[in-house]
Amino acid sequence: MPIALPHHDGSSLFVSNTAPGPVSLGDTVRLRVRVPQGWGPASKVWVRSVQDGEPRYDAAFRLGSADGWDWWEAAMLVANPVAKYRFLLEVTDTHDDGAAADTPTGGALVGTTVGRRYWNVNAQGLFARDVSDSADFRLTAFAPAPEWLGKGTMYQIFPDRFARSTQADGHPTPDWAIVCSWDTPVVGTGEEASTQFYGGDLPGITGNLDHLKELGVDVLYLTPFFPARSNHRYDASTFDSVDPLLGGDQALVDLVEAAHARGIRVMGDLTANHSGAAHEWFVKALADPGSEEAGYYYFSPDHSSYESWWGVPSLPKFNWSSEALRRRFVTDHDSVVSRWLKPPFNLDGWRIDVGNMTGRLGSVDLNHEVARLIADRVREINPNAALLAESTSDAAPDVTGEHWQGAMTYSNLTRPLWSWLAKDAPNVNFFGSPQSGPNRISAEDFLATHQDLAAGFSWAVRQNNMNALNTHDTARAATVMVDGGPEAGAVLTFCLPGVPVLFAGDEFGFEGFNGEDSRTPMPWAESGSEGKPAPVVDHRVVKDLRSVYASLGRLRKEMPALTEGGVRWLHAEGDAMIFVRETMDSSVLVFVSRDAAQVVLDDSVLSDAQLRALLLPPLHHSGTVASATAGPSGVEGVCLRSKGISAGIWAIPGTPLPLH
Amino acid sequence: MPIALPHHDGSSLFVSNTAPGPVSLGDTVRLRVRVPQGWGPASKVWVRSVQDGEPRYDAAFRLGSADGWDWWEAAMLVANPVAKYRFLLEVTDTHDDGAAADTPTGGALVGTTVGRRYWNVNAQGLFARDVSDSADFRLTAFAPAPEWLGKGTMYQIFPDRFARSTQADGHPTPDWAIVCSWDTPVVGTGEEASTQFYGGDLPGITGNLDHLKELGVDVLYLTPFFPARSNHRYDASTFDSVDPLLGGDQALVDLVEAAHARGIRVMGDLTANHSGAAHEWFVKALADPGSEEAGYYYFSPDHSSYESWWGVPSLPKFNWSSEALRRRFVTDHDSVVSRWLKPPFNLDGWRIDVGNMTGRLGSVDLNHEVARLIADRVREINPNAALLAESTSDAAPDVTGEHWQGAMTYSNLTRPLWSWLAKDAPNVNFFGSPQSGPNRISAEDFLATHQDLAAGFSWAVRQNNMNALNTHDTARAATVMVDGGPEAGAVLTFCLPGVPVLFAGDEFGFEGFNGEDSRTPMPWAESGSEGKPAPVVDHRVVKDLRSVYASLGRLRKEMPALTEGGVRWLHAEGDAMIFVRETMDSSVLVFVSRDAAQVVLDDSVLSDAQLRALLLPPLHHSGTVASATAGPSGVEGVCLRSKGISAGIWAIPGTPLPLH
Repeated sequence: MPIALPHHDGSSLFVSNTAPGPVSLGDTVRLRVRVPQGWGPASKVWVRSVQDGEPRYDAAFRLGSADGWDWWEAAMLVANPVAKYRFLLEVTDTHDDGAAADTPTGGALVGTTVGRRYWNVNAQGLFARDVSDSADFRLTAFAPAPEWLGKGTMYQIFPDRFARSTQADGHPTPDWAIVCSWDTPVVGTGEEASTQFYGGDLPGITGNLDHLKELGVDVLYLTPFFPARSNHRYDASTFDSVDPLLGGDQALVDLVEAAHARGIRVMGDLTANHSGAAHEWFVKALADPGSEEAGYYYFSPDHSSYESWWGVPSLPKFNWSSEALRRRFVTDHDSVVSRWLKPPFNLDGWRIDVGNMTGRLGSVDLNHEVARLIADRVREINPNAALLAESTSDAAPDVTGEHWQGAMTYSNLTRPLWSWLAKDAPNVNFFGSPQSGPNRISAEDFLATHQDLAAGFSWAVRQNNMNALNTHDTARAATVMVDGGPEAGAVLTFCLPGVPVLFAGDEFGFEGFNGEDSRTPMPWAESGSEGKPAPVVDHRVVKDLRSVYASLGRLRKEMPALTEGGVRWLHAEGDAMIFVRETMDSSVLVFVSRDAAQVVLDDSVLSDAQLRALLLPPLHHSGTVASATAGPSGVEGVCLRSKGISAGIWAIPGTPLPLH
Repeated sequence: MPIALPHHDGSSLFVSNTAPGPVSLGDTVRLRVRVPQGWGPASKVWVRSVQDGEPRYDAAFRLGSADGWDWWEAAMLVANPVAKYRFLLEVTDTHDDGAAADTPTGGALVGTTVGRRYWNVNAQGLFARDVSDSADFRLTAFAPAPEWLGKGTMYQIFPDRFARSTQADGHPTPDWAIVCSWDTPVVGTGEEASTQFYGGDLPGITGNLDHLKELGVDVLYLTPFFPARSNHRYDASTFDSVDPLLGGDQALVDLVEAAHARGIRVMGDLTANHSGAAHEWFVKALADPGSEEAGYYYFSPDHSSYESWWGVPSLPKFNWSSEALRRRFVTDHDSVVSRWLKPPFNLDGWRIDVGNMTGRLGSVDLNHEVARLIADRVREINPNAALLAESTSDAAPDVTGEHWQGAMTYSNLTRPLWSWLAKDAPNVNFFGSPQSGPNRISAEDFLATHQDLAAGFSWAVRQNNMNALNTHDTARAATVMVDGGPEAGAVLTFCLPGVPVLFAGDEFGFEGFNGEDSRTPMPWAESGSEGKPAPVVDHRVVKDLRSVYASLGRLRKEMPALTEGGVRWLHAEGDAMIFVRETMDSSVLVFVSRDAAQVVLDDSVLSDAQLRALLLPPLHHSGTVASATAGPSGVEGVCLRSKGISAGIWAIPGTPLPLH
């Protein structure tokens, strides 16, 4: 049975600024931790922060008690832009109920020594020993990201494969392309993977925006729209215009306008790490070693070779020590970063490609400097614009919130999610790593991995990280996961902190063994067009999940706890997991299982009112049942049950602070 | 029973450079991992590194097998100054022997799923799930630290309390001082803690160097010798001369000469974070807001207040954005950092006080910049000089080896050691943190804490970290630990990677409840003098541990495995721990227990020859016994046994690589 543990996260239940507005340097914030009375109780509590490099301890006082929990609060000075902290609890009589196997945290659960004992609570859980500072909670004094980003539901489109408008018919065939009809099977490997050309275009997207609207999407993320020599367009030949094959500049203006009219924001995709070898800058640079443009790249002294992304010659790497490049790409009035965020285009933000490698080569590491430069410029143009960066490894050290507001990363959610829901030995590319595929891990290991990789992000950044089941760069979840896995997984991407992302086609159950193979053209029988109804689909739909996503998208709008609430794990064991997203006013309980499971929750983890709310119909569910377990004095607990892979989301009352 | 696990560390068994000399940027290194055949066996192995921010995978090949282990090797490019890596193992049939409770690693031990499975091996252990990059192994391409440092045995002296020469008798009483006789009890708290003045001086140290020699010490670390207004002298009033109360400049020249003559290096202690308020620079700065010196500090705009260490007005904080300070303190020909390393003083290096706070204030973080500046200057003067920094929190992020060569830190060894060996509820200051004292933790938690806090250091830096049982800033181990704890703990400080440190008085069993209280004057009945025999001690000796330290110091010189070998943990459970330090030619096995314990080692973890060597007399021991456990075909294993707190060190054969 789940047992209650001390808990803190960065949500408003636990953090409040004594100054108005977002946290600034020099503010004093109040930090709270809730400690179950049955567990300790704690006799003393401190916030341990690191200030100017040195640990400090601020004593907490007991704010009050409610529903079997003590709430403690301490004031901490935000002395540095990244304020790291954890809680230190001293417990006089540690209670040993031998329940250590049932811990949803990375730390030891219950002490075996009765007597005085201290505990650390950090972003990885609860530890009866010292811990490194790497998993400390962190508050930051950086400019906040736009609110719409963290509250959004994102839809990713790879333009060549979404929809082909009638305008596209007149386009000439590019010399690099293998022209395909909309029904041509996608080739996932070899050279054709990047040259198969289906001719999807921006007007095609504009015509189908009602499809996004019906899914509850409010952020559209487009992979690159610049002219290039591949279907993915990450090898831009210019940053100054929209690919005519996509409809040109006006098509982008029209798309963004139409999207905005529907309350949908549009984000572009920019390669800050490299251009294409056919880029006008690189062509000049290659031809003329004395040119300004030659300084934008890393040429060998004799100009016979150059650095490129991953050694691929078509993607020459930028040299960010070039002041001229900095101006042209970022700081100039009409720089690449700038112009697309301004009228007439009005993009709402950028996703930066290969953010993790940008500005890094050998002994040179300008990564954070470049990121800061870009972020400052973006904020200058539009403080309400979003800035995300791709980061394929452990993203936390680079994504502090100072510049990138969130990460497109797979480490903290997508990988462990695949691993928990994986079918037996799926034959898929596992994010470019060479082992045969994901491990099938338990819910304990899902949570340990998730917390290990999420702990390094501030709470603010976690809200903006992209929670993808899969993307244009990965296999499709439907190929990786057991039957029903994508639906169960989607519940987690929508309900855990972060921005849920659908890659176009997820809603139709599309499959794919790697990123290229996943870029299947959409199954439109008849496309919409601007101002017309949403498109009609045909037999190419593998599994229609539109109502699942629409339901989740709706919930994210209706339930503030899903976008603002803290996250408290109640259970993670084998086949099942349960967590709550909590605010003072309302909360949401999420139960996901990959197989038959049964978990009893009692009043040690939820209040009586919360338990009773579980007996009402769930907000969203498939195959889950809640029933009361009776005790001598009425409802004693609630049993959540599933017969197989399933998910359920319940609205439950919020958690008011026990203020005097 | 201990079971064998995949193992790698940064020692020469596992890392070899294909280029001669230390690792440089662009080198290709060969990295090895040993995998027990009975565990997997691994079917595929890769090194996963992070290069220019992106994960790379280099396939390993099976080098050969020996004693039941497969050795795998891969080549990795050192693409960046800090090359992070871990191993990825794919195992086809994970063997499940249910021994998960016996793991000496932080990760899950044995898979419960039979079938294909991948594992990560990082500096925290073995994980059947994804892990963050924070505990990756790391190789660095920085200038190496002097070899003498990592191989050394260090002795720390707080000059006021070590020995008083006859020269001291003529000194005037400083106006801030409470003059004490050598027998006055030390006051650990209140104002007197820093003003009790015993008058120990440098000639007193010089006269007693044979005492250090007999302990096997070869590095002497002196806390500050500059004039000041306290007995600790961390509030220097000048950096230009040695305190006359200590004998003045000539006394330092004499001390270093006499030490060098005995093969003992001498390191000084420098406050790069602050000066004293009586410092000549600060006096000028305070008097004249327009002076150059005013720029060395952080004054308020109206010059009425200033920043200081921990808010203590007597320690005004340096402002490292001052170019003039940088010159005067570091880069000038005759700078503070420089002059004491040069003739006639010839100090062998510096320990930098409050290294973690230096250059950090609010939004300003010049810490690494200042550290680099100091390190460059030190190397310029003497490439064979040492540079260590105090770092009281998690030191790894600051101590990469680029500048500071090692840390004076308590997190990775001293704190968990205290916790494992703590008596019941000792009333001591636990490194400034406010809980009542250390937890009494199990050996599992000792190892988890040790690995958690050590994982962020490169192997090279780990060799130079100060392994202290206690220092002038902490309680004494004898006050914290159970009877026999300091002796057992000393074995760990001498045998785990790092530089063992004795704080003067440890060898006499001195006690103390905090740093100030621990600064007890030495128990000399009769001091030595230059060229004379070592001093004679009297009844003030609490417990004479000189032979213990001398034995350990000797072993460190005689057994290369203790200073060069890898470290492989065989066992860490409850009251006992066992590890080996290994080289190709020779190894050492260390068994430490805090209570009666019995552990059987068999040929899954050690070779037959190594097991047999355990039946020979140990190199160093107290209360440990090894006996053969017989099987049908002779010696099947060895049982290590202790009846109480104890330690044993055995020489065992090395581990040759199974090269073709």
